[in-house]
Amino acid sequence: MPATITAFESSPDRGRGQARDMRVRWAFEEVGLAYDVRLVSFAAMKQPAHLALHPFGQIPTYEDGDLALFESGAIVLHIAESHDGLLPKDANARSRAIAWMFAALSTVEPPIVELSMAMLFERDKGWYAERLPMLQDRVRVRLGELSRHIGGANWLDGAFSAGDLMMVTVLRRLATSGLLDEHPDIAAYVARGEARPAFRRAFEAQLAVFVASSQS
Amino acid sequence: MPATITAFESSPDRGRGQARDMRVRWAFEEVGLAYDVRLVSFAAMKQPAHLALHPFGQIPTYEDGDLALFESGAIVLHIAESHDGLLPKDANARSRAIAWMFAALSTVEPPIVELSMAMLFERDKGWYAERLPMLQDRVRVRLGELSRHIGGANWLDGAFSAGDLMMVTVLRRLATSGLLDEHPDIAAYVARGEARPAFRRAFEAQLAVFVASSQS
Repeated sequence: MPATITAFESSPDRGRGQARDMRVRWAFEEVGLAYDVRLVSFAAMKQPAHLALHPFGQIPTYEDGDLALFESGAIVLHIAESHDGLLPKDANARSRAIAWMFAALSTVEPPIVELSMAMLFERDKGWYAERLPMLQDRVRVRLGELSRHIGGANWLDGAFSAGDLMMVTVLRRLATSGLLDEHPDIAAYVARGEARPAFRRAFEAQLAVFVASSQS
Repeated sequence: MPATITAFESSPDRGRGQARDMRVRWAFEEVGLAYDVRLVSFAAMKQPAHLALHPFGQIPTYEDGDLALFESGAIVLHIAESHDGLLPKDANARSRAIAWMFAALSTVEPPIVELSMAMLFERDKGWYAERLPMLQDRVRVRLGELSRHIGGANWLDGAFSAGDLMMVTVLRRLATSGLLDEHPDIAAYVARGEARPAFRRAFEAQLAVFVASSQS
């Protein structure tokens, strides 16, 4: 039986693939593994059955036999460790790819989420206009550092890895911010990720959930 | 030769052990591994030599032979994978411990950092008084979820693991916020971590750097 993950029953991003199940779907597709999806409502995510799988009441979760996991980073790492295709064979290169997973989640994503949250929830506040440039600048610093690191390379460290998978999904959250336009090299890096057949399949699968839910 | 990590030459928290080298020091101590520390100034962190080790110009970094890593999560995971003492032997329990590392860094730490940043840099802003409760509430939500998960247990999932190590260091950043006082069970969990001999040794080592720098 394939592993089962959870995803939003009703996608808050209208099928743009910015929810965290996208990372796990993409990982499954990269290693060529089938998976099942159980959709959960926002109300169900805070109920005991889901909290037993995810103490913070979020998606995605992962169930495979007697193993249950949460946190997209941990799930992608688990898939990458147990199947070929997302981590280099060389031990040092493997550790560096994992470092890039942590960098995507701990160093690059937080200022992006902070900016997104402000754009979503503080747009009508008196301080929004003054705080926005500060939040944008924090993201710009990270994009500049990332751009300098990538240079002319295709991926973060040699071949495509789980580190790139996480970084591309994190950077995609900037889509509506306009900030990727300031760094054509980063935009091209994201586009390289999105062009991978495994990304396309994962994207179409999550889009199908939104299309089905919006027609019902 | 022992591995070398980097830490702040001049500790911004005045030796309270909240910088991210503390996590790596603690991991070394838990597995009983000697390590060397190279201190770096804020200016040096943004120079090419350091950026070659850490693309985002931060600490800690890790160098061991021909392996260089950055990101405290990745370094702790690397130490935990290559030595006994921080990850369970059972494969499923091991994956769950790693999930807690990601939860500490991706789910619990971001709202804590956001609150700390506001307390440090926006205290003089007109919006500070109105935003502060919102930021505190975001942290409170996570503390409530964590408290419910821990229940009466000593650690997050069975025996002490790298997941607890990361979570305790993340929660310690709340020390001056007063929020831990609202959850005596979480405060007790943090205190259990701080009482471990390995934590004490790591704490004393980073404190010695501050004491030396403040006397020079």
